[in-house]
Amino acid sequence: MPRTSDARDRMILSAALMLRERGVAGTSIVRVLEDSGAPRGSVTHHFPGGKREMLLEAIALAGATATAIMRTAVERGGSPPEILAAVVGFYRRALRDTACAAGCPVGAVASEAHDDEALAAAARDVFAAWRSLLAGALEADGHPVDEAVELADLCIAAVEGALLLARVERSTAPLDRVEHALTGLVA
Amino acid sequence: MPRTSDARDRMILSAALMLRERGVAGTSIVRVLEDSGAPRGSVTHHFPGGKREMLLEAIALAGATATAIMRTAVERGGSPPEILAAVVGFYRRALRDTACAAGCPVGAVASEAHDDEALAAAARDVFAAWRSLLAGALEADGHPVDEAVELADLCIAAVEGALLLARVERSTAPLDRVEHALTGLVA
Repeated sequence: MPRTSDARDRMILSAALMLRERGVAGTSIVRVLEDSGAPRGSVTHHFPGGKREMLLEAIALAGATATAIMRTAVERGGSPPEILAAVVGFYRRALRDTACAAGCPVGAVASEAHDDEALAAAARDVFAAWRSLLAGALEADGHPVDEAVELADLCIAAVEGALLLARVERSTAPLDRVEHALTGLVA
Repeated sequence: MPRTSDARDRMILSAALMLRERGVAGTSIVRVLEDSGAPRGSVTHHFPGGKREMLLEAIALAGATATAIMRTAVERGGSPPEILAAVVGFYRRALRDTACAAGCPVGAVASEAHDDEALAAAARDVFAAWRSLLAGALEADGHPVDEAVELADLCIAAVEGALLLARVERSTAPLDRVEHALTGLVA
């Protein structure tokens, strides 16, 4: 018998994974319950704020996951291309594991829920954390601060966009090309 | 009294404009009817394939619009940075006109409807047309073909992603930074 906190965590993970494939509109509480096997009665207990609260937690989890991947690469002394390779590798594996259905949960929220202030703020916070980490690594590698921020934004935007291309092309090729172009830039 | 073909065209334009703000889930036939003022009875006549057919036409219109902007810049002898400025300027104006709510209709479809083969194919065709045009201009400007395709994909992906960032940040700043970085690259 799982503890109730397990049910909440499982629902958040399930929501994050569903978001990256089905987007905001497709990530319903009912589907997340089915997918996570969490008991139905616990929804209002775990998420008194309903679907929005569940999505906020899913965005935070997805953001923290990619941030952790980048931070680990930074702490290992990785160069900017190595940090980029770590995070692009994460999204490439997700594409491969899902027949190219999985994009970025944070990008899905930005695309679909930008008019919901709480969800937009959550996505904004994640992008800001990624920008800060990447720009810091680029600055430490010798780029002037303005250029570092610009390159960090370019990397984040290009990977988000490449995932859109990869999903409709059912191929990782656009992500591969974009990574190759970015690697040359941040080296 | 508008001709029925006018009603169809108005619905397609309305759907394309709605798609870029509200996405696939938010672009319903009912909303498009209201927004376009088209007569309700004409829907099944104009779009026997329902919402999907309407969306397919909207994607084609949105794709052709951006393609025409790029092609016009190419035909005027524009350099790659000028071609990029023309198309980024189009999306920047859309952001400014809508308090940063409007992204790219084709990106919205790629994000939300990648599992619908007809819609995914339509988005894929648009991205392929953009890639071909941009890569051609870059090749004509002296880039080797592989590099030209890679840079074209980087531009398309980065602009799509920058629109996601701009929408949650309620600011054109991410698009401005990405354009600046890309301009240096394609010059």
